[in-house]
Amino acid sequence: MIIDLDRAKKIPLYLQIRSKIAGLIEKGLLQPGSRLPATRDLAGSLDVSRNTVVLAYQELEVSGIITSQVGKGSFVCKHLPPGISSPGRDTEMTMSFEGLFSTGWMKSHAPLLSVMEQISYAEDDPDMISLASALPDRDLFPLGEFRNCLQSAMRRYGSDLLMSGSPRGFKPLFEYLPLFLARRSVICESDNIMIVNGIQQGLSLVGQLFVDPGDTVILENLTYPGALGVFRSLQANCIGIPVDSDGIRVDILENVLRRRSAKLLYTIPTFQNPTSTILSIERRKRLIEICRENQVIIIEDDYAHELNFEGVEALPLKAWDECDGIIYMGSFSEILFPGIRLSWILASRSVLDRLLLIKESSDLYTNRILQGALLEFSLRGFLDKHLKRKRLVYRKRRDIMLEAMEKHFPVEVSWQKPKGGLFQWVDLPSTIDALSVLLKGRELGVVFAPDRMFSVEEWERGGFRLGFADVREEKIERGIRILGDILKEVIL
Amino acid sequence: MIIDLDRAKKIPLYLQIRSKIAGLIEKGLLQPGSRLPATRDLAGSLDVSRNTVVLAYQELEVSGIITSQVGKGSFVCKHLPPGISSPGRDTEMTMSFEGLFSTGWMKSHAPLLSVMEQISYAEDDPDMISLASALPDRDLFPLGEFRNCLQSAMRRYGSDLLMSGSPRGFKPLFEYLPLFLARRSVICESDNIMIVNGIQQGLSLVGQLFVDPGDTVILENLTYPGALGVFRSLQANCIGIPVDSDGIRVDILENVLRRRSAKLLYTIPTFQNPTSTILSIERRKRLIEICRENQVIIIEDDYAHELNFEGVEALPLKAWDECDGIIYMGSFSEILFPGIRLSWILASRSVLDRLLLIKESSDLYTNRILQGALLEFSLRGFLDKHLKRKRLVYRKRRDIMLEAMEKHFPVEVSWQKPKGGLFQWVDLPSTIDALSVLLKGRELGVVFAPDRMFSVEEWERGGFRLGFADVREEKIERGIRILGDILKEVIL
Repeated sequence: MIIDLDRAKKIPLYLQIRSKIAGLIEKGLLQPGSRLPATRDLAGSLDVSRNTVVLAYQELEVSGIITSQVGKGSFVCKHLPPGISSPGRDTEMTMSFEGLFSTGWMKSHAPLLSVMEQISYAEDDPDMISLASALPDRDLFPLGEFRNCLQSAMRRYGSDLLMSGSPRGFKPLFEYLPLFLARRSVICESDNIMIVNGIQQGLSLVGQLFVDPGDTVILENLTYPGALGVFRSLQANCIGIPVDSDGIRVDILENVLRRRSAKLLYTIPTFQNPTSTILSIERRKRLIEICRENQVIIIEDDYAHELNFEGVEALPLKAWDECDGIIYMGSFSEILFPGIRLSWILASRSVLDRLLLIKESSDLYTNRILQGALLEFSLRGFLDKHLKRKRLVYRKRRDIMLEAMEKHFPVEVSWQKPKGGLFQWVDLPSTIDALSVLLKGRELGVVFAPDRMFSVEEWERGGFRLGFADVREEKIERGIRILGDILKEVIL
Repeated sequence: MIIDLDRAKKIPLYLQIRSKIAGLIEKGLLQPGSRLPATRDLAGSLDVSRNTVVLAYQELEVSGIITSQVGKGSFVCKHLPPGISSPGRDTEMTMSFEGLFSTGWMKSHAPLLSVMEQISYAEDDPDMISLASALPDRDLFPLGEFRNCLQSAMRRYGSDLLMSGSPRGFKPLFEYLPLFLARRSVICESDNIMIVNGIQQGLSLVGQLFVDPGDTVILENLTYPGALGVFRSLQANCIGIPVDSDGIRVDILENVLRRRSAKLLYTIPTFQNPTSTILSIERRKRLIEICRENQVIIIEDDYAHELNFEGVEALPLKAWDECDGIIYMGSFSEILFPGIRLSWILASRSVLDRLLLIKESSDLYTNRILQGALLEFSLRGFLDKHLKRKRLVYRKRRDIMLEAMEKHFPVEVSWQKPKGGLFQWVDLPSTIDALSVLLKGRELGVVFAPDRMFSVEEWERGGFRLGFADVREEKIERGIRILGDILKEVIL
């Protein structure tokens, strides 16, 4: 590849390389699908550091111009965005944003992109069987009932729903939540509750309140990628504690906390994402003790409490929280439908008052129309009815998936039956990389969520997550059969 | 005040002071409304630095336990929150969050609180005439029409509205926006647009993308407090450029940029908040040039474009943006109703792609039900009809306010007639502090928004903002008469 760099120019070399490569692609000198030189080789031929080339490739990847495949190299994307060389065009008229982005942004957001892309491109394909998502089934959505509740909320509360509101949320909803939470054995007052746009926003607010760059945050390894994204973007030092069939390894946590202090611990004790495990009762109690002794704040994410298929296995940590040290989050996105975008944070007043200020600075307050409708929906008993139906359907799909796995998967892979939630975790033998299985799967029409999407550091627990909630019965059987064939081939 | 500090304890002295004062208040030894010692005096008697006492008072203020009045001192709040001493209670069971909050939080969120409190407590009082808010009138809300649009959107798009969505927004809405924006003479493609939860979220996302601690951000002085909050929380170095009757002083901006570089400039060129000025056409062009020459990114907030009472005075800056360097935001909160919480960002792809990642990390995506309903509302012509009505009502209220001001205000105060928007700015002679007028006004039943709420550094332009949109005609006349009496008394 011929690239001349102008070392006299003020423009950083990595941006010059980025812009020249984009130019070659735009002129058709580099075709979609073709492979770029290895970073080491290009660095050598241009006489720049390898890091400079890595940065240039990263910029191209973020712009959707190239795509990197671990162990295979970088390729020009098949579908190019329009005007690809524009950020580098040389006219004086152009505003160049490159080099102006914050270091926080650069450190946090670039890495996760490429794996997600592998899956999301594939999911747009209607022939693809996607086991990647942890979404509920849209055909189960209580559309008519929710529409009625929107109407009656608009009639009942009138222009109150359209006015600007408090960052805390719609008062009738957060005053109702203690009743709802009492059914989870969490006893609380409405003063300690705020409404947010999904658990993702809850995590973002809590992160902003507590995390300074370099602070240690402990997560389960593997964990929910959205949490990782938040803490990484705040430049936290993220540490992963392994998860086994009883949940997070509290013994390892204890050892880690003996050697170093930490500010926050993020945990999903029930139907852990992505492993679907339930933290045992002994470990729940010990986890609370350890964190109290070490003054580590627990963030408990209880996103799917009601989606249990075999009754309640364990109370939330928050139910045992005598010292008000746990920040408890839950959501209506999983138990109702994702588009509702309504979750809550339950925390001590000293924390909540500050979260309210950050919420206000983030987006003032959450719209109240949906909060009113959700309250109607729950008060009229539609939520209970909906949950009953959901549990039955998901349980059936889990059973079909398990049956198919028994039939088609080789003996070398292993799994545990999830007692609720939206997905099945599969452990792979250490010799096999889930990503290579994913790439083969994509060719044959099945995608899933591989370990590295959920991984804090190295992924010591190799495997993948299969969502069953959103997949029709016949597709589950077919998808598992295809995956089984791939696994047998790879393991041989 | 008798306070013993334990210098051997690990708990920082300022937290000990905070907790002891809270204890005195809880035990009734310090009564609501009573005055606390001056920080300097208390520091002397406790033999600690004054800063330690300032920090302790700040903590008490954030917790809503005391309130500070500039030039008057600190007082125990009249309405105390429940369990005020709890964050400092000494039982071993308690998780202490104090000392764990991030420095970003400590630096940014504490200061703005107290002024806001003065107003918002007063606004809860039904006998109070509030000219403080810049809210639209709830009685004008098109409740029935919007309810119908919610229904038809639910029917038209079905479960699409309840599914999880793209961080970019609901596709039919952002594909419609170029049509909507063309009426503002902004020509763009839907690829460059994303939907956010209000301009506040837009600012928060853009801030996170560009601002590192210490980066310079230029704002109009005075400006929208929500923008200040965002940039301060990111620890930006905020610089204010004065605003006169033709908008931001571009000559001063040019001088400032000769001496120092800046990353962002945030401007509200039309119906500037809080001064209601319209940036002149000459200055619009010069502003774009200066920012391009200095590689300063312009964030244009065009929150109320359609609320003009005398026709369009000037095109948005974005309409002249040949180099794609302006990030353009607008909102449906002011032109429709605040509870809609829907705004947009229009920006170059290299910026937008990154904002989408930050949006995803902040709250995944914005709910689509309201996006669908808004689209229906606009396509069916209800938005135009609603705007026509709003312009007439607001214009009439502005005229009534101006007439009352002519009649009741002393000659020493001055103002300009706003050509649109939601509020009237009043300039005070430099001898008078708007806050002292506010405190008197509150006693007599009128509140407004004083200069310091909007002030970047010192408030060189003293005065206050009077909202007219949300106030009934008879209340406007009465409120202005009371204010006039206070002003005459203060100026004598």
